[in-house]
Amino acid sequence: MAVVDGAPFEITAFKWVPDFAQGFVRDLRPRWACEEIGLDYSERLIGLEKPKDYFDEQPWGQVPVIDDDGIKMFESGAILLHIAEKDERLMRNDPQSRASTLSWVFAAFNSLEPLFFELGNVDLFAKGQQWAELRRPSLIEFLGQRLDRLSDALGDADWLLGEFSVADIAMVTVLRNGRDDDVITSRPSIAAYIERGEARPAFKRAMASQLAAFAEHAPQAA
Amino acid sequence: MAVVDGAPFEITAFKWVPDFAQGFVRDLRPRWACEEIGLDYSERLIGLEKPKDYFDEQPWGQVPVIDDDGIKMFESGAILLHIAEKDERLMRNDPQSRASTLSWVFAAFNSLEPLFFELGNVDLFAKGQQWAELRRPSLIEFLGQRLDRLSDALGDADWLLGEFSVADIAMVTVLRNGRDDDVITSRPSIAAYIERGEARPAFKRAMASQLAAFAEHAPQAA
Repeated sequence: MAVVDGAPFEITAFKWVPDFAQGFVRDLRPRWACEEIGLDYSERLIGLEKPKDYFDEQPWGQVPVIDDDGIKMFESGAILLHIAEKDERLMRNDPQSRASTLSWVFAAFNSLEPLFFELGNVDLFAKGQQWAELRRPSLIEFLGQRLDRLSDALGDADWLLGEFSVADIAMVTVLRNGRDDDVITSRPSIAAYIERGEARPAFKRAMASQLAAFAEHAPQAA
Repeated sequence: MAVVDGAPFEITAFKWVPDFAQGFVRDLRPRWACEEIGLDYSERLIGLEKPKDYFDEQPWGQVPVIDDDGIKMFESGAILLHIAEKDERLMRNDPQSRASTLSWVFAAFNSLEPLFFELGNVDLFAKGQQWAELRRPSLIEFLGQRLDRLSDALGDADWLLGEFSVADIAMVTVLRNGRDDDVITSRPSIAAYIERGEARPAFKRAMASQLAAFAEHAPQAA
């Protein structure tokens, strides 16, 4: 267990979120990266009503932010690259490996996650609204094309760069947002890739830590 | 002019795109970054019908890709960070500056650009479709909230980190996608920030280079 009170690498996460979000909040990403390299981290848990001045730390009021022994950052993609700089198990240091890692991390965050954001709007936040129902088919078609390209790029490899890297933490946590949807389940190579990620011991420890905080701070039943 | 035939830093861009996209294709980003630091680059111009095997270079079939003296990359955000590593004028090397630069680059690509992607769908690619009309108000409301937070974060500073950095290349090129929309023009501090970016000599040279290629390869009138 890499959650250690007082560890100088601090991850800010929520005390509690509603069921649908549990296991999907983005502090899972730095938790997973820390677990892969055995980096102890401490937790700072905040309420959904954020602390005063929290927008000065995170312009959108989201989690995670980190404080790495005084260095402060936001945006989970940026934090993943920051952690990856610490250990070649997350990003190999030869120039082509660095370049490919960066390419795939941005592919996850800029070319795939935006489509899952909109799928979340359509299926969850705007569920039942007319536009959401009308929008869904073209969104799924475009997302499916991207997933087919991703599947081609992955080929027979287990991981995007051959060996596991932070790019897989980025991509698997993005793809998990649609893990139960037909657009994923109908593509066995993508579904299997997600499962490989979720089967890693470091992923499981990260998930357990996020869920443990929520369980501890769950609202009392009325 | 930093476009030099045979320069070992090669940017792949399109020979020509339709009017609405001219000046907005994403090879503008690495062109601008190269111009800021005086890095000569060569152009490899491809048709909208991509070369065979182009998907092996760029999984979504988009531009830009780069070949930096043998190092190959895709995704304009990744390419910006790669170029920024070469020169402190794009990313200062102290740990907090690096961390803040990464944070804002990802903020541009993951927290703002997805909203502009969807605005492009609503206003351009799906224009006239019922869902697009119904979707627009909630999209603009959310985008406006993000822009207000961005404006707060910018405060009275000219640039996101105080001094100009690659984070501004990322953010300004994202914001330009909505530059003529009321959601931007009604926010003077954001509009002024875009104008500061577009006024930089390096931006102007980058823009001129992109447009020069399109002019040279424009289809002949029938």
